[in-house]
Amino acid sequence: MYKFYYAPGTCALASHIALEEAGAPYKAERLDFRSNQQNSPDYLAINPKGRVPALVTEQGVLTETPAILAFIAQTFPRAQLAPFDDAFKLAQVQAFTSYLCSTVHVAHAHKLRGYRWATEESSFADMKRMVSKTMGSNFALIERDMIRGPWVMGETYTICDPYLYTIGTWLEGDGVDVSALPKVMAHRKRMLERPAVRKVVEEEKA
Amino acid sequence: MYKFYYAPGTCALASHIALEEAGAPYKAERLDFRSNQQNSPDYLAINPKGRVPALVTEQGVLTETPAILAFIAQTFPRAQLAPFDDAFKLAQVQAFTSYLCSTVHVAHAHKLRGYRWATEESSFADMKRMVSKTMGSNFALIERDMIRGPWVMGETYTICDPYLYTIGTWLEGDGVDVSALPKVMAHRKRMLERPAVRKVVEEEKA
Repeated sequence: MYKFYYAPGTCALASHIALEEAGAPYKAERLDFRSNQQNSPDYLAINPKGRVPALVTEQGVLTETPAILAFIAQTFPRAQLAPFDDAFKLAQVQAFTSYLCSTVHVAHAHKLRGYRWATEESSFADMKRMVSKTMGSNFALIERDMIRGPWVMGETYTICDPYLYTIGTWLEGDGVDVSALPKVMAHRKRMLERPAVRKVVEEEKA
Repeated sequence: MYKFYYAPGTCALASHIALEEAGAPYKAERLDFRSNQQNSPDYLAINPKGRVPALVTEQGVLTETPAILAFIAQTFPRAQLAPFDDAFKLAQVQAFTSYLCSTVHVAHAHKLRGYRWATEESSFADMKRMVSKTMGSNFALIERDMIRGPWVMGETYTICDPYLYTIGTWLEGDGVDVSALPKVMAHRKRMLERPAVRKVVEEEKA
């Protein structure tokens, strides 16, 4: 039985959905970011980075969304969440998850977490003003070049899909005009037709 | 025969070293960042992100360092650059490469590429001032928790090693006191004892 640490509204939702889709045995543990629980001594003993997600396994703790997603896919091959038997296709999946974590999530983080990279209020305001533009251009690239449809990788649902869904739910809050992103929005709708996705989304909202 | 696009001084060095270590058949193609060649129409047709590295294979183009590194490791299993037969160990490797791309490389990028996330000169200066601190604390975590020694994952050399080496070469330029990072510095020295590393480092310098 895994223990899965998450907080609502974070990128942990992607791994949470993947665990559910894979039929993995897990217990979800919610952290309260408002009381800064991610930086409590108890949690830092689990994940010294003070972030979510963290997946506690019998072999040890895993962090970082792309790594956790690939781990779930490889450990539960019946769910067919990633093409581990094809190096090129797997690399395409990983290029997508890597782009989301290193570019898109980072663009979003400049709205509320500017203190990670600067100290002045004027810099935070400057960063915040640019988020709709950076998220907009990142998602324009996703819309144009990356979503094959109906799923990110084409006919097969993969770990790319819950991750895209998760980060896509931030678009409206980031001031992006989603009417310019018809494929992304159709993908969001399609995701919410999946029982596993609805279950996890409801659970995180509760 | 792969075509591998890189520019000196960038994170592409990690994949370049991995190609060499794997004995992969490749031709390195250098881009001139000073003339902004990464945003030329010819290169954007290969990689619409306008970044390096990009690996052109017979099946298509791959981007994003963690994905390219894993692809090389899986395609050339004899080089044993990643534990693809062990989901947990592979996830540890990928958690490390993911941390480097989404946190450490991003911290460094705030020194010279602040325009990605802000528009004001005062913000750029603010970001620049913080880089020694963010890179210092990221590497303090790597030093304390992540390098098992002699290689990142312990006795076995993996794709983590050229990636750590690559980003580690930016430390002095980022104003980090490397005397506080003995394991990182010993790792750098150990890397330069490898013929494949020396060959690629010399080639990129030439």
